Amino acid sequence: MDDRLSRQLAFALELDKEKNVLRQTHLSGQGRRENDAEHAWHMATMSYLLREYANEEVDIARVMLMCLIHDVVEIDAGDTYAYDDEGRQTQAEREEAAKRRIFGMLPEDQAAELMALFEEFEAYETPESRFAHAMDNLQPVLLNTSNGGADWAAHGVSAEQVYGRQRKTELGSKRLFDEVIDPAIREHIERGTIRP
Amino acid sequence: MDDRLSRQLAFALELDKEKNVLRQTHLSGQGRRENDAEHAWHMATMSYLLREYANEEVDIARVMLMCLIHDVVEIDAGDTYAYDDEGRQTQAEREEAAKRRIFGMLPEDQAAELMALFEEFEAYETPESRFAHAMDNLQPVLLNTSNGGADWAAHGVSAEQVYGRQRKTELGSKRLFDEVIDPAIREHIERGTIRP
Repeated sequence: MDDRLSRQLAFALELDKEKNVLRQTHLSGQGRRENDAEHAWHMATMSYLLREYANEEVDIARVMLMCLIHDVVEIDAGDTYAYDDEGRQTQAEREEAAKRRIFGMLPEDQAAELMALFEEFEAYETPESRFAHAMDNLQPVLLNTSNGGADWAAHGVSAEQVYGRQRKTELGSKRLFDEVIDPAIREHIERGTIRP
Repeated sequence: MDDRLSRQLAFALELDKEKNVLRQTHLSGQGRRENDAEHAWHMATMSYLLREYANEEVDIARVMLMCLIHDVVEIDAGDTYAYDDEGRQTQAEREEAAKRRIFGMLPEDQAAELMALFEEFEAYETPESRFAHAMDNLQPVLLNTSNGGADWAAHGVSAEQVYGRQRKTELGSKRLFDEVIDPAIREHIERGTIRP
């Protein structure tokens, strides 16, 4: 086996560890905590099915791939909860080192390609990254609302925090923000599962 | 919210159940059993990274999507272990009913599209489906060999059974069969983890 294939397989095996990175979101049916690999699969599949709602035209293969790999850095850096303001201060630094180590396992051309794709996702500047972020935000709302907003309630999340994150969903899909996310947030503020 | 979006979101939420369908494969590091959603994510990501080894040119977006949705039917039909000859006799019938119910939750055009994609995967006739199957076969070998072949040993799997399934990997990627799968099988027959 040549060095190229051997590096690709080592990276593929390393990916397996993403299945052990737990998120704060719980599966529907009051299930266990979700892991990053499941979340990425769910987002990627949703991105294809909901692509008609993207604000701008998107290259859906790029969106799917971005969804699939956007959390790989968390193998080293761990999951940083969207509303953990302290954790978020060191997040960029932790993820930068992880990015170099993990994608660096691949042959150079693929390492560069995936690092660039991850950076594109983080930068929120292309239609693909904005739509992938919309999926990153919508997917946990879908699970959380199916569980009566239990994840918001458990963390005492405030309306300001939820809107702070979810306003960005609008950049990727105004329609999904207006018709799904915003009504869900309003309902849960009213119910008291999100602090006003 | 209109009927179309509402059906798409109901389907997206239904997908969540795939995270509870357990496979016989264990995660690397002698981990817990893998579920279908994790497996699909891993396969889809690998398909992109290893696409240069496909025997024929493939539309990689179609391959990734096929990988992402190929096990959705198991939400109803359950996972049928590759070497469970009894279970495999009723597999087609169970999966046919599941396909109609689950993809049928989507708007008609998307239901038809995903059913067709699933059927294409099952039929092994296009370059995309053959390469997706190669990933479906390679991914558990990667995990299983990292664990010393423990899954083969636990099920008393024979060389004939492994080759019966893995010969088809060759249809999607001769190079991955020759350089990864075949040497792994030979090694594990020699070690006794696969029955001769």
